[in-house]
Amino acid sequence: MRYHKIPDETVRRLPTYLRELQLLREQGTENISSHELADSLHINPPLIRKDLSYFGDFGTPGVGYDTEKLSRCIRKILKLNTSHRAALIGLGNLGRALLRYPGFGRYGLNICAIFDNDTKKVGTIVNNVKVAHISRLSGLKRRKIPLGIITVPGETAQEIADKLVAVGVKGILNFAPYYLDVPRRVKVITIDIAMGLARLPYYLPNHA
Amino acid sequence: MRYHKIPDETVRRLPTYLRELQLLREQGTENISSHELADSLHINPPLIRKDLSYFGDFGTPGVGYDTEKLSRCIRKILKLNTSHRAALIGLGNLGRALLRYPGFGRYGLNICAIFDNDTKKVGTIVNNVKVAHISRLSGLKRRKIPLGIITVPGETAQEIADKLVAVGVKGILNFAPYYLDVPRRVKVITIDIAMGLARLPYYLPNHA
Repeated sequence: MRYHKIPDETVRRLPTYLRELQLLREQGTENISSHELADSLHINPPLIRKDLSYFGDFGTPGVGYDTEKLSRCIRKILKLNTSHRAALIGLGNLGRALLRYPGFGRYGLNICAIFDNDTKKVGTIVNNVKVAHISRLSGLKRRKIPLGIITVPGETAQEIADKLVAVGVKGILNFAPYYLDVPRRVKVITIDIAMGLARLPYYLPNHA
Repeated sequence: MRYHKIPDETVRRLPTYLRELQLLREQGTENISSHELADSLHINPPLIRKDLSYFGDFGTPGVGYDTEKLSRCIRKILKLNTSHRAALIGLGNLGRALLRYPGFGRYGLNICAIFDNDTKKVGTIVNNVKVAHISRLSGLKRRKIPLGIITVPGETAQEIADKLVAVGVKGILNFAPYYLDVPRRVKVITIDIAMGLARLPYYLPNHA
């Protein structure tokens, strides 16, 4: 089976569907209607039906979606059914928090290289990985690591991104609050904490 | 001046405009056309013009937007021109990373209460704040703190959210990978790291 032309917005929602489907499976739910699934995710049913229509005919009328089949299918589409190696650059508090984060393992990300510019951290073992100096980043080339995770302070993020591109990385998870300028063949997903928190006060009542 | 009916999607983009405008001001740029601003943000010009139209007539034909006036205006709309107190719950790696994060101060968030369930952490001083046990959360009520930041492991996030709602919090910044069920009067912004990383492998070439 081949999957074509899935819009970015659908890809953005797929992990949420997957998480809910896996939760349902753990709870013993074998089938769910698109309406119930949409309901539990607080998404409009037509949107979820449209997104799921890219997967073919998994829904059975009167029965709904097979939670096990649909999760397996989404995992395959998102390429979460195989493990991917990743390098993490920047072993500050955020870097350390991410290394302890169970989500990486759950979604098949295997952090097998860690870089920092602090000589006190270089050579230490974190999560079974020996921390290397950031000047050794070019050595990643021969290891063909496809993913990079940038947790350095903002100003140096572009420089690190350039180096990651140079060693052949295909995808970057960026926590620095900057737009990274990379070739089109490289996908950047930015998780911008500042932009999330900056829009929170907007929703406060005026007297707060 | 009153601002009405700004769509959530526009509010979502405002912090990005603000950051760019502030950067432009620091670089000495006094005016910018919507086209140039859109260009530097990699957003479609019609979208940015539509978003900025909610602010009234800041653009001068042939001159563009006054970067200083427009930033001030966006800061005011987003209520970033005043400081807001926040409580942080969960002093793990992520919590610590956030406390050192300059973005909180920059956007007027003043973390003035910290809670954890680890008795070894309770009583220690972090960022000039004495860490309290999570069982003391109800004591927040009299302090009228409007914002809560949830950095506890996922399973307990809803329980913490319920407690925050009970003590009168109006907005929650949630880092736990869960949908939080709260009354409509409380705004939740979830920064879901897992959902970001789960969609990264999708964009890898098939041989990676």
